[in-house]
Amino acid sequence: MTKTNAGYFFEDYQVGQVFRHGPLRNVEEGERALYQALYPTRFAVAVSDPVAMALGLEGAPLDDMIVFHKVFGATVPDISLNAVANLGYADLRWLKRVPPGSALEAVTRVIGLKQNSNGKTGIVWVQTVGLDAQGDEVLTFVRWVMVRKRDVDAPAPETVVPDLPEAVPAADLHVPEGLDFTHWDKVGVRAPHRWGDYAVGEVIDHVDGVTLSEAEHMMATRLWQNTAKVHYDVTSRPDGRRLIYGGHIISMARALSFNGLEGAEFMAAINAGAHANPAFSGDTLRAWSEVLEKAETDVPGVGALRLRLVATKGGEAGALKGEDGKYLPDVLLDLDYWALMPI
Amino acid sequence: MTKTNAGYFFEDYQVGQVFRHGPLRNVEEGERALYQALYPTRFAVAVSDPVAMALGLEGAPLDDMIVFHKVFGATVPDISLNAVANLGYADLRWLKRVPPGSALEAVTRVIGLKQNSNGKTGIVWVQTVGLDAQGDEVLTFVRWVMVRKRDVDAPAPETVVPDLPEAVPAADLHVPEGLDFTHWDKVGVRAPHRWGDYAVGEVIDHVDGVTLSEAEHMMATRLWQNTAKVHYDVTSRPDGRRLIYGGHIISMARALSFNGLEGAEFMAAINAGAHANPAFSGDTLRAWSEVLEKAETDVPGVGALRLRLVATKGGEAGALKGEDGKYLPDVLLDLDYWALMPI
Amino acid sequence: MTKTNAGYFFEDYQVGQVFRHGPLRNVEEGERALYQALYPTRFAVAVSDPVAMALGLEGAPLDDMIVFHKVFGATVPDISLNAVANLGYADLRWLKRVPPGSALEAVTRVIGLKQNSNGKTGIVWVQTVGLDAQGDEVLTFVRWVMVRKRDVDAPAPETVVPDLPEAVPAADLHVPEGLDFTHWDKVGVRAPHRWGDYAVGEVIDHVDGVTLSEAEHMMATRLWQNTAKVHYDVTSRPDGRRLIYGGHIISMARALSFNGLEGAEFMAAINAGAHANPAFSGDTLRAWSEVLEKAETDVPGVGALRLRLVATKGGEAGALKGEDGKYLPDVLLDLDYWALMPI
Repeated sequence: MTKTNAGYFFEDYQVGQVFRHGPLRNVEEGERALYQALYPTRFAVAVSDPVAMALGLEGAPLDDMIVFHKVFGATVPDISLNAVANLGYADLRWLKRVPPGSALEAVTRVIGLKQNSNGKTGIVWVQTVGLDAQGDEVLTFVRWVMVRKRDVDAPAPETVVPDLPEAVPAADLHVPEGLDFTHWDKVGVRAPHRWGDYAVGEVIDHVDGVTLSEAEHMMATRLWQNTAKVHYDVTSRPDGRRLIYGGHIISMARALSFNGLEGAEFMAAINAGAHANPAFSGDTLRAWSEVLEKAETDVPGVGALRLRLVATKGGEAGALKGEDGKYLPDVLLDLDYWALMPI
Repeated sequence: MTKTNAGYFFEDYQVGQVFRHGPLRNVEEGERALYQALYPTRFAVAVSDPVAMALGLEGAPLDDMIVFHKVFGATVPDISLNAVANLGYADLRWLKRVPPGSALEAVTRVIGLKQNSNGKTGIVWVQTVGLDAQGDEVLTFVRWVMVRKRDVDAPAPETVVPDLPEAVPAADLHVPEGLDFTHWDKVGVRAPHRWGDYAVGEVIDHVDGVTLSEAEHMMATRLWQNTAKVHYDVTSRPDGRRLIYGGHIISMARALSFNGLEGAEFMAAINAGAHANPAFSGDTLRAWSEVLEKAETDVPGVGALRLRLVATKGGEAGALKGEDGKYLPDVLLDLDYWALMPI
Repeated sequence: MTKTNAGYFFEDYQVGQVFRHGPLRNVEEGERALYQALYPTRFAVAVSDPVAMALGLEGAPLDDMIVFHKVFGATVPDISLNAVANLGYADLRWLKRVPPGSALEAVTRVIGLKQNSNGKTGIVWVQTVGLDAQGDEVLTFVRWVMVRKRDVDAPAPETVVPDLPEAVPAADLHVPEGLDFTHWDKVGVRAPHRWGDYAVGEVIDHVDGVTLSEAEHMMATRLWQNTAKVHYDVTSRPDGRRLIYGGHIISMARALSFNGLEGAEFMAAINAGAHANPAFSGDTLRAWSEVLEKAETDVPGVGALRLRLVATKGGEAGALKGEDGKYLPDVLLDLDYWALMPI
């Protein structure tokens, strides 16, 4: 009898099933430094105690994406080890900022199932919650993945498709506790644009490019404890190439977006996300953003921008889909998220 | 007169000679994060204060292999800079767990010498002890290396071959102070198997593979201050390839062994180890384990498994040596160690 | 209207102009671990609280080069984003040692301008000061860069060439506060040579080589927030190669210089520096030093060595320039600096 985890197959999931993915694990200053070494991020709050404190926080929290990666990574052995594809995200909200030295864990509930018509795979919808050592929720999100069946003859489950919001309503965005942008102009962040300077429909070309390398994406993916074989093992794909973890592309694109969105210090929610095409070492990644919506929050001075963040390996800023409605071949990521910035 | 350290040659060593290899050096949270980025380890105690505390420890100690690497690395400039080969390990025992923020140093005594029949090289046996800033021993081990002579005409020393245990007796294993597995089931580690579930002779295929890359093994090796040229300098070997530090392979294989040995949280001793074949960037490393022996320890609830941990770049789990008694060409590491896990 | 920072062009600078480059940013233990993983440094004070405290400091400060990189990196978006070349450094002095957990920022004043005769570029001289959260100066330096004009028809500014010292006078070197080498022999650093053992004119071959890799130099450069495109983006240069950040070469050479300069624990000043030729992934870097000058400091027992540190990708130690007075093609770096060591 094998003692290794073969992962779950489609017929192993039931609606209502709950996974506690593993123990609490520390996230520390070392992760913060690695994050800066791996991604060209220059947002200030996540790396500066003086800036964070001048804005009403207790100290610099970890970058929002570190929290996402840690919670997401913890779910991989149970949710996506046998996934054919990570199909989408919805209703992702950051609920509490996480200081270095915290410990995090993740719990997931299966909320939907639908066998595909080919009978070989099915779609699993899950809701994951990240928790800290105090038991407080720090992050919540829904994702759905296509998972192989172990036995194609296993009966199809009753189809349950969850009702998901197209986007997180601005009223549901959580503003970090204590956040106050009153002293924003004095903290030294060179952010020439405020919330009021952005217009719906505006496209921002973030200009800079980063050529991806194997060692970097593997180190990142390992740091988040994402164990999916395709990221590490050249023998796991017919083409002998290591597929770059989609979250690595999100972090890279978000980091590049600093150039043009310097004041968008916090991510508050992810409304939707698609990894449009696979990314590989050697690709040169660029990013552009489109302003989709603007909203005020319930905290004075804190505005919300709903942004489309697109990562590409070529092509013009603003080019997303072809006439056939499909993503252009150079588009790697199409992410719809809410950022918070000073009004 | 040159001011650089040319390292020691065979005729420079005498039995009884003692090396204090360098000053105390800090090991911190940064090393912990890098360790997770470099190796796909998921053992919980070494990265979770809440888990460690629930098991009776004061907080998460550094991974046992970080301590090994730091102590081993410190010895390289004196012991193995001119080594032709690292021939073996014996009687390695972890004696005290090391929290981040500690400082470590290493002291080595020469315990054996034997010139080879070719007159050009000799074998040096050394015992190394790692110490913390309190002067407590944290690790001890014996290793032996083949070292070049500077002058082939230098007279051969008297042959002294130390008497080494074939394996550390279970009674000599050091259980981390305070360790109590009573609450193991509640800490959230998903370890489906306990000590009682493993049988002597059982072979566990750890399934996952990792393709090795240059930047990663160099960063790891540098972090441990291992200065041997062959790991960094393509001009130092006729084939123009960088030899991967053997300890990198040990850490990679130990990390992969989580899948099937989830409860084997602590390494207690290394009985023997052989780097069977060299590893290079591009090799895809896999691992399998064989249960060699089972023992209880003097701490109730803490069991010991003696394991053979084998790293390969191909081949079946369980395949180790050919009919000629030599390691198969795909075998990279054959490590015999004791792990501690809940009974 | 574009919202991205296109950087400054030559005609945008005026003598007397001041840039506050960004907010205070933390530098932590994570950076220290990454520094050790990226460079083969073995100097003790920067990684050992016990050694630092035995030498009169409060604890291990960050490596001097970490401080340089952090301050330098902060200036790139304003000073050298459109730079054709980083022409030189002068009068760089470390003024205060920086413990991990500090926050640093940088402020730069333009001190000179000279349009080149081709009318397309100009030289900008700047003085940069690094400050900590207490407002104390930790580092100061002058550098000059060649910057493109946006509009070749823009009028030339009045030429102002600052008066720069050829070298920092020994009397101006800042000895770290509290530094006392009285107990140097007891801290365990294996430094066989003291200040008195070095002679002016002596050349030290540091022997070891390191083959450079893409992932490493990009991680390092990103960690210092240096955003210049040429380091990350293969499409930004006609040859499709990523140019390695010059500071990466300085750190690599300084680390290699440990072998022969073990006691040169502190960098006190950089008098001049030239990146003689570009470095690329795959180059095998070596280093040699020449003793240019010796001086005592105002602190008893603390000596200063003025050293030429040369990084090469081949060639003999001591070989620097050809008969034409130009740097040999294998020379990458020619750095003139002051180090402090026990007398």
